Amino acid sequence: MTDTPHRRGADRTEDIMRATLELGQEIGYAKLSMEAVAARAGAGKQTLYRRWPSKAALLFDSLLSVNGPALDYPDTGDIVADLRAQIHSAVDLLARPPVGPLFKALIGEAQHDPQIAAALNERFIAPQADKTVARLKTARDQGQLSPAFVLDLAMAILSGPLYFQLLITQEPLTHEYVDRILDALLTGIGPTHAY
Amino acid sequence: MTDTPHRRGADRTEDIMRATLELGQEIGYAKLSMEAVAARAGAGKQTLYRRWPSKAALLFDSLLSVNGPALDYPDTGDIVADLRAQIHSAVDLLARPPVGPLFKALIGEAQHDPQIAAALNERFIAPQADKTVARLKTARDQGQLSPAFVLDLAMAILSGPLYFQLLITQEPLTHEYVDRILDALLTGIGPTHAY
Repeated sequence: MTDTPHRRGADRTEDIMRATLELGQEIGYAKLSMEAVAARAGAGKQTLYRRWPSKAALLFDSLLSVNGPALDYPDTGDIVADLRAQIHSAVDLLARPPVGPLFKALIGEAQHDPQIAAALNERFIAPQADKTVARLKTARDQGQLSPAFVLDLAMAILSGPLYFQLLITQEPLTHEYVDRILDALLTGIGPTHAY
Repeated sequence: MTDTPHRRGADRTEDIMRATLELGQEIGYAKLSMEAVAARAGAGKQTLYRRWPSKAALLFDSLLSVNGPALDYPDTGDIVADLRAQIHSAVDLLARPPVGPLFKALIGEAQHDPQIAAALNERFIAPQADKTVARLKTARDQGQLSPAFVLDLAMAILSGPLYFQLLITQEPLTHEYVDRILDALLTGIGPTHAY
């Protein structure tokens, strides 16, 4: 809502990103086009292309716009509870519409578009890894994790099984699944119970 | 080599799959086409389409043809040595040309093509999971692994971090990386050293 006849730039951007997610959810990534998003948002195609070089770039910004603080780690002092809460949020966000199928499609694009792969890492994976490492470091310093746990592997170990389910087996990604994975990771595969 | 003027069906299939991998490596998956493979293999386009409905299906069969026994698990009696050896083989096969980039592209396709996703699971992932579970079960029965280790999660836990590196961060997938991951998984994340 605005009282000027022309919506301002920031509003426009929000409209366009909202239209991208709505349309993407309705027709799927393959059929999504800059033209269709422009029409849905009531914007000119040039307006879209001035800001986003491709529909993948537009989709990525749109996905990031709904991501926000949902994937921050709580710090209740209990690392297991906090990891569980964060991973449940990640599952709720990344595995369900509207984000889920479009996020999967974007990762598909990243397999043959190095710019999308780089953006995915710089703007989503790396910031998530930084948050993960910071929360785990606190817990390790408090003796809540193995002192041997190598933090730079944390993202791969904690989220690898989640992406495996999302991208490879494509079976339902549930809270129960990630709970079982987290329990197994805490215990370790080796012969002695760790946790 | 054959002494009949027309190559037999099996030879033809091999020629076509070899041409697919060669061309795929040269020009990349995006530019690969049924026409170009047919021309390279000296076969008719119809011959290809009779057997494979799409270039993704043709590529998948071609990739499976080079996979073979490389991803079997040795059984030397030492599960850590055997896991390490198998994962090294997987890295050598899945992360390097000719298979690596084409395998990545195929997983990209699986994000919007349910038939490719189903084939990937039925013909590659599920058989690998069966082998993995069989080898780990023997080791668990021999007390070499945690009795609590839930075998149906083994593929996700062991190969999730590998796919994370291959598909998401796209950083080099090396023996050193998977060795460090394996050590961390054996120890577990929890506070007590398990291994």
